[in-house]
Amino acid sequence: GIDADALWSDILTTAQYGATAKGGIRRLALSEEDRQVRDWFVRTCTAFGATVHADSMGIQFARVPGTDDSLPPIAIGSHLDTQPTGGKFDGIIGVLGGIAVLRALHETGRKTRHPIEIVNWTNEEGSRFAPAMLCSGVFAKVFDEDYANSRADRDGIRFDTALRSIDAAGKEKCGEHPLAAYFELHIEQGPILEAEERVIGIVTGVQGMRWYEVTISGRDSHAGTTPMSMRNDALQAATRLMSSVQDIALNRAPNAVGTVGLVEVRPNSRNVVPGEVFFTVDFRDPQDGNVVAMENAFRDRAATLSREFDVSIGISEIWDSPAVHFDGGLVDSVARAARSLNFPAREIVSGAGHDAAYVARVAPTTMIFVPCAGGLSHNEAESASREDVAAGANVLLRAVLEADER
Amino acid sequence: GIDADALWSDILTTAQYGATAKGGIRRLALSEEDRQVRDWFVRTCTAFGATVHADSMGIQFARVPGTDDSLPPIAIGSHLDTQPTGGKFDGIIGVLGGIAVLRALHETGRKTRHPIEIVNWTNEEGSRFAPAMLCSGVFAKVFDEDYANSRADRDGIRFDTALRSIDAAGKEKCGEHPLAAYFELHIEQGPILEAEERVIGIVTGVQGMRWYEVTISGRDSHAGTTPMSMRNDALQAATRLMSSVQDIALNRAPNAVGTVGLVEVRPNSRNVVPGEVFFTVDFRDPQDGNVVAMENAFRDRAATLSREFDVSIGISEIWDSPAVHFDGGLVDSVARAARSLNFPAREIVSGAGHDAAYVARVAPTTMIFVPCAGGLSHNEAESASREDVAAGANVLLRAVLEADER
Ligand SMILES: NC(=O)NCCC(=O)O
Ligand SMILES: NC(=O)NCCC(=O)O
Repeated sequence: GIDADALWSDILTTAQYGATAKGGIRRLALSEEDRQVRDWFVRTCTAFGATVHADSMGIQFARVPGTDDSLPPIAIGSHLDTQPTGGKFDGIIGVLGGIAVLRALHETGRKTRHPIEIVNWTNEEGSRFAPAMLCSGVFAKVFDEDYANSRADRDGIRFDTALRSIDAAGKEKCGEHPLAAYFELHIEQGPILEAEERVIGIVTGVQGMRWYEVTISGRDSHAGTTPMSMRNDALQAATRLMSSVQDIALNRAPNAVGTVGLVEVRPNSRNVVPGEVFFTVDFRDPQDGNVVAMENAFRDRAATLSREFDVSIGISEIWDSPAVHFDGGLVDSVARAARSLNFPAREIVSGAGHDAAYVARVAPTTMIFVPCAGGLSHNEAESASREDVAAGANVLLRAVLEADER
Repeated sequence: GIDADALWSDILTTAQYGATAKGGIRRLALSEEDRQVRDWFVRTCTAFGATVHADSMGIQFARVPGTDDSLPPIAIGSHLDTQPTGGKFDGIIGVLGGIAVLRALHETGRKTRHPIEIVNWTNEEGSRFAPAMLCSGVFAKVFDEDYANSRADRDGIRFDTALRSIDAAGKEKCGEHPLAAYFELHIEQGPILEAEERVIGIVTGVQGMRWYEVTISGRDSHAGTTPMSMRNDALQAATRLMSSVQDIALNRAPNAVGTVGLVEVRPNSRNVVPGEVFFTVDFRDPQDGNVVAMENAFRDRAATLSREFDVSIGISEIWDSPAVHFDGGLVDSVARAARSLNFPAREIVSGAGHDAAYVARVAPTTMIFVPCAGGLSHNEAESASREDVAAGANVLLRAVLEADER
């Protein structure tokens, strides 16, 4: 099985790249910290006999040959980028779980038929460059490369510029890389497994999600001299529209969620009635129809507020990731692995997006979840137990070996 | 009288320091652009025979001697700093109007009994360093110097550090500078004079204003996996509390205003339920009692929302500037000057804060308003006519000469 100590030690090691004072990680995609952890990835995988290369989007592949090296590889992966105030597990254990599989194979001398590849997908979080899963999206031909390269962060730095700045790209064209199967181990990032005391989530798919950018334009004016009746206050309109995101999601209970995560106010000065507000919206539901219904309700509310506050409101949908259903055969193999190892397990739909959601379009794909404390993620206090992470990696190892025999 | 062409030309010249693409000015207090306009001020006033020095807060005084130089000076001034997206008139015409008076005296060879001083107050806007009128506040002993020096901008740069970085401070201790009288010419920044077709506002005082900083702390979590019922969403609580600022001000009609001008969301990532929101509140009313009532209503609303959203809400009042009443004698002299020059005039209470509000505590003080287009200020499109600005400067000249004879 997996070397649980070595896996835990890798978690602590990678947590040093971009470590925050509060015990979390700030390792934005294609930042200097990302460069450091990418170098660690190359060194570590090379030590297990892998050869590592990157593609044109900076996606890293660490490959150990199979006994039949003409077969496409079985890939295991996730991402090493984090949120601005992220934790030590989100994404990371998917890559380190893959490395744990490499280590187990290396130390037991066991050979697989297929080549095995550990994959580090670039910019999964979507926090620096929106949308999330940008490069697995290119890999799966959902986005073209020009689109991805043109995405810019909030400082206006383009993806391709950032990629060059840490010299992360390789020669292989992104997407020209067939896979026999893809597995991703991840923390659940939600409360269900912990509440039900299950160790393994057999992930059957990912819920539907859409992202929007909203720009409200009113008119800057003086906070002390502009009568309330003469204002075109972009922020006051925004407060109503942002609060509707919560109301709209609650209206689609029990599963729908709606979030405003990012807000920018201009000119952002204490004594200026704001002339412009930019904010983002994230709507999700396991049923795509509910996501559409939330969007419609949101657009209606915006139209009303635009009239009421005499401001213009522009809404652009920048991402539509419909609900995903994973490969039935691989889902079953995860269930079998959990059962044979005696881990309490249940089927689960992912609330978070994952690179697996896009890879599923071009290869048989599934995921394995393990619990995290309080269901908390995208938080520096994100935490998972050594035992649960090791359990997930052991299920991963079994499922990979089963897939190799097919 | 005043040289209207020269005054207008000074407006266009100073507008170049920090000029924005949209025809406005970005010249934050103690920035490099502020340094440039300060140098211009020294050069220009020196050419009219003034000697210029700065005090410990960087307040600049350009002095021409009086025939009785033992008398305290009559001061004329305002500020040269601007909002991040400010206009060419707010503050600036108060300083340039003073320079226009200097020029008129210089060119006619007329001597005053009192020395005349043109003053450029540091950091009036309060946009870089809160609160507004920080240094006239030190001058009037409302704030002590240590307090002012410790104020930091949103990047954490302290006032004293910024002052040193452009070498703006002089040896004179701020406040050790008696004045015989103080006059400030300014655009109204509101709609009244224009609507009533008056050229001169005889400013009788300034309304009461208070500033608050609000920090809402919830818990960061994942936007896709955290059920609506398990969120401690600092931003959703903030949207309700920010919208109450408008409702509370409307409840105190007709004169009250309430504004949220600055908002910061943390971690400000599209797929993270915000864990912290910082925002500012500005409440104003000509009656101090109404400002207090608005604060009380706001605190009540915060307490309710704190329970409802399970977030903590900290409110600190960082500024209390009660309503100010200017010197009756000087107010009358402005009325007389306007009448004798045949400018339609009316009494008016300032909705904006001005350095005059603090100087009024230590010297007989008044202000002169001229209209601005649409009442618009704190906006790059801020505009006033050459004729109105010249009219204001001519009223200023007469009122100053009358004060000199007293
Ligand atoms: N796993 C994860 O947190 N991915 C980020 C994309 C999302 O917002 O769901
Ligand atoms: N005149 C002016 O805009 N001053 C800024 C202080 C205020 O907010 O009123």
